[in-house]
Amino acid sequence: MTDLTLLSRRAHDTCATLAAHTEVPGEITRTFLSAPSRDVTAFLTAWAHELDLEVRVDAAGNLRARRAGPTPDAPTLFLGSHVDTVPNAGAFDGVLGVTLAFAVAEALRGEVLPFALELLAFSEEEGVRFGVPFIGSRALTGTLEPLLTLRDARGVSVLDAIRAYGLDDAALPDAAVQGGALGFLEFHIEQGPVLQAAGAAVGVVSAILGQDRVLLDFTGQAAHAGTTPMGHRRDALAAAARFAVAAEDLARATPGLVATVGVMTARPGAINVIPGSAHCTLDLRHEDDAVRAGALEALLNAARTFAEERSVSLDVTHKMAQPAIPMDPSFRDLLRAAAAQEGLSAPDLVSGAGHDAMILADVMPAAMLFLRSPNALSHHPDEMVNPEDVDAALRVGVAFVRALAGREGTR
Amino acid sequence: MTDLTLLSRRAHDTCATLAAHTEVPGEITRTFLSAPSRDVTAFLTAWAHELDLEVRVDAAGNLRARRAGPTPDAPTLFLGSHVDTVPNAGAFDGVLGVTLAFAVAEALRGEVLPFALELLAFSEEEGVRFGVPFIGSRALTGTLEPLLTLRDARGVSVLDAIRAYGLDDAALPDAAVQGGALGFLEFHIEQGPVLQAAGAAVGVVSAILGQDRVLLDFTGQAAHAGTTPMGHRRDALAAAARFAVAAEDLARATPGLVATVGVMTARPGAINVIPGSAHCTLDLRHEDDAVRAGALEALLNAARTFAEERSVSLDVTHKMAQPAIPMDPSFRDLLRAAAAQEGLSAPDLVSGAGHDAMILADVMPAAMLFLRSPNALSHHPDEMVNPEDVDAALRVGVAFVRALAGREGTR
Repeated sequence: MTDLTLLSRRAHDTCATLAAHTEVPGEITRTFLSAPSRDVTAFLTAWAHELDLEVRVDAAGNLRARRAGPTPDAPTLFLGSHVDTVPNAGAFDGVLGVTLAFAVAEALRGEVLPFALELLAFSEEEGVRFGVPFIGSRALTGTLEPLLTLRDARGVSVLDAIRAYGLDDAALPDAAVQGGALGFLEFHIEQGPVLQAAGAAVGVVSAILGQDRVLLDFTGQAAHAGTTPMGHRRDALAAAARFAVAAEDLARATPGLVATVGVMTARPGAINVIPGSAHCTLDLRHEDDAVRAGALEALLNAARTFAEERSVSLDVTHKMAQPAIPMDPSFRDLLRAAAAQEGLSAPDLVSGAGHDAMILADVMPAAMLFLRSPNALSHHPDEMVNPEDVDAALRVGVAFVRALAGREGTR
Repeated sequence: MTDLTLLSRRAHDTCATLAAHTEVPGEITRTFLSAPSRDVTAFLTAWAHELDLEVRVDAAGNLRARRAGPTPDAPTLFLGSHVDTVPNAGAFDGVLGVTLAFAVAEALRGEVLPFALELLAFSEEEGVRFGVPFIGSRALTGTLEPLLTLRDARGVSVLDAIRAYGLDDAALPDAAVQGGALGFLEFHIEQGPVLQAAGAAVGVVSAILGQDRVLLDFTGQAAHAGTTPMGHRRDALAAAARFAVAAEDLARATPGLVATVGVMTARPGAINVIPGSAHCTLDLRHEDDAVRAGALEALLNAARTFAEERSVSLDVTHKMAQPAIPMDPSFRDLLRAAAAQEGLSAPDLVSGAGHDAMILADVMPAAMLFLRSPNALSHHPDEMVNPEDVDAALRVGVAFVRALAGREGTR
């Protein structure tokens, strides 16, 4: 037992160590194939060598540390997360999923497993440098190709960046998962308040929410706030405000639905002028795509009604429509059983944010174990995690792999 | 009858002539004591001389053209409006009230009246240059003094501007109304849709609405739109949007109340981030101060409730609280009778905007006759007025003065 606690401390503290590798002194900022990401790879490579793992960096810059299976055709269990960050990030988002994967491998060193283990440190997940996320995990599913021509703020393409880093883009096909994949487990901080409110150290992700992102532009007629009676107004903001209220009301009344109006502006924007135009956004998420589609339709119908009632026109721009990704049921069962074995309650919860597990779910069973976010903060320097919760997650992870080994070994 | 029609045409067309005197070529912009306001004064002085009126420019830059009464102690009827404009204005706001006053005096030339007539072209009403309106009419009520130290965008004070224009600030007390004031009549375009909707050329103002201006700052907690369930949010914009809806609902349900949320912003203002703060404004107007006070209290209570329900804090800044100004009942009766005599319906309506008549009402009976705004536009280059409505207003004005003469002559 002492060993696992020490190992969990190593997983926790290594996040602080890796946080020192940053593009911006005084904060944690580490984007795709930046200079500090090379230092992170070097650090993790040393740890992998300590565990006698076989290390390679694939053509997308992902670190892959492999423990061979009992036979060449044994399937592979993948464990890991990403090592890039948002600007001015916390120390744990992504990185903790990598260090916990290494700690699991270290805990199981010397134990016989009926499958290979591959630890993954994805080079890119946050979408900061090229505006599109998941560059690292897409290399494993063979879907990176269409993104190679994207350019960053300085005009450098993904392909340029890969070559400039010294990687061989011709080897990209070798980055894709080959052979039997048993599945993927990702540890990640929750980034929300659910586990904290439930008093649980860890939770099992049931699904990654589907998501719509919509822009709404209401256009009426600017007019004098004093001389225009209520019945003569074409107030664009009045329609937009009513839409925001409807979004909150519907989400509160629909279990599991989250709806956010994050942007709201009115023009001309003077205290004594009726707004002639208003712009707002909608971010809508649910684990059931049919529920989300129904909610979106209801809200857009409401927006149209609010606009028509005020002789206001409405333009809707649908920026994103992404289906929900359920996590693998058998992996979820194993995680719950592992938690119970360790005396932990591990409630089900959804992931409102996207994760690498969502991408890998396309090609193999995928699952996530969330760790409590004590202050519900992430993408923020004050992001944190309790060391005891890292210990709990490590125990669940080790028990999960052992249970999976039991299941696979008796097949 | 032909004479009045020609005179009304002169009043209308002179607005276009005066529009050429502007600080900004290609638009109509004429602020307090700007160079083009000197040209306007010169133009109107010539018209006054044509009518054998005695002309002076008072220490606040107001043009005052006087026709003496039958005796030195006869009271004075004042007629007029302002000649300054907002930036990029229309041609009629203010100026038409001046040219119609001149046309009334021209129409009554040679007729015996039991009072003096004084035509007023106020130098400032819009509040553009110094941020505070009514510099011109305040000189007539002896309330300009506290404003003399205000500074414009270039650091010039009102006092500096008066002196630089060649006026004598020591003579400011002489600008105040002295002796018996019979009252003040101001013609003005409505700047709203009420007369147009009623199919009326002119209307009689019952009151100038009282007004509150309030700033509301809601502060909650920014958080991830995907990972924060509805029950855990401290969404500042959700509270602010609900406030905007409450303002519209209450105004719609309260006869005569107008409520406007003209400004609405959310921060940080990203599509996938719950707003941690929201700022909005309220402009609230009614002719009954008790109704307005009750509405303000109800709306601020609602805002506090919406904030508390979301663990959001609320700061309220009360920027302006201005009581309603009723127009003089006997002048209103005379205006209605004059309209009836000319075969015109002149419905009562309120003024949602402030006007010089509101200032003069402090020291004498004051009334306003509104002219229909065919497109309900003002403070805009497309502001317009129907020539037939100018004719109607002139007839009502002339009949009003004659009726007043009848009343005063028989006292």
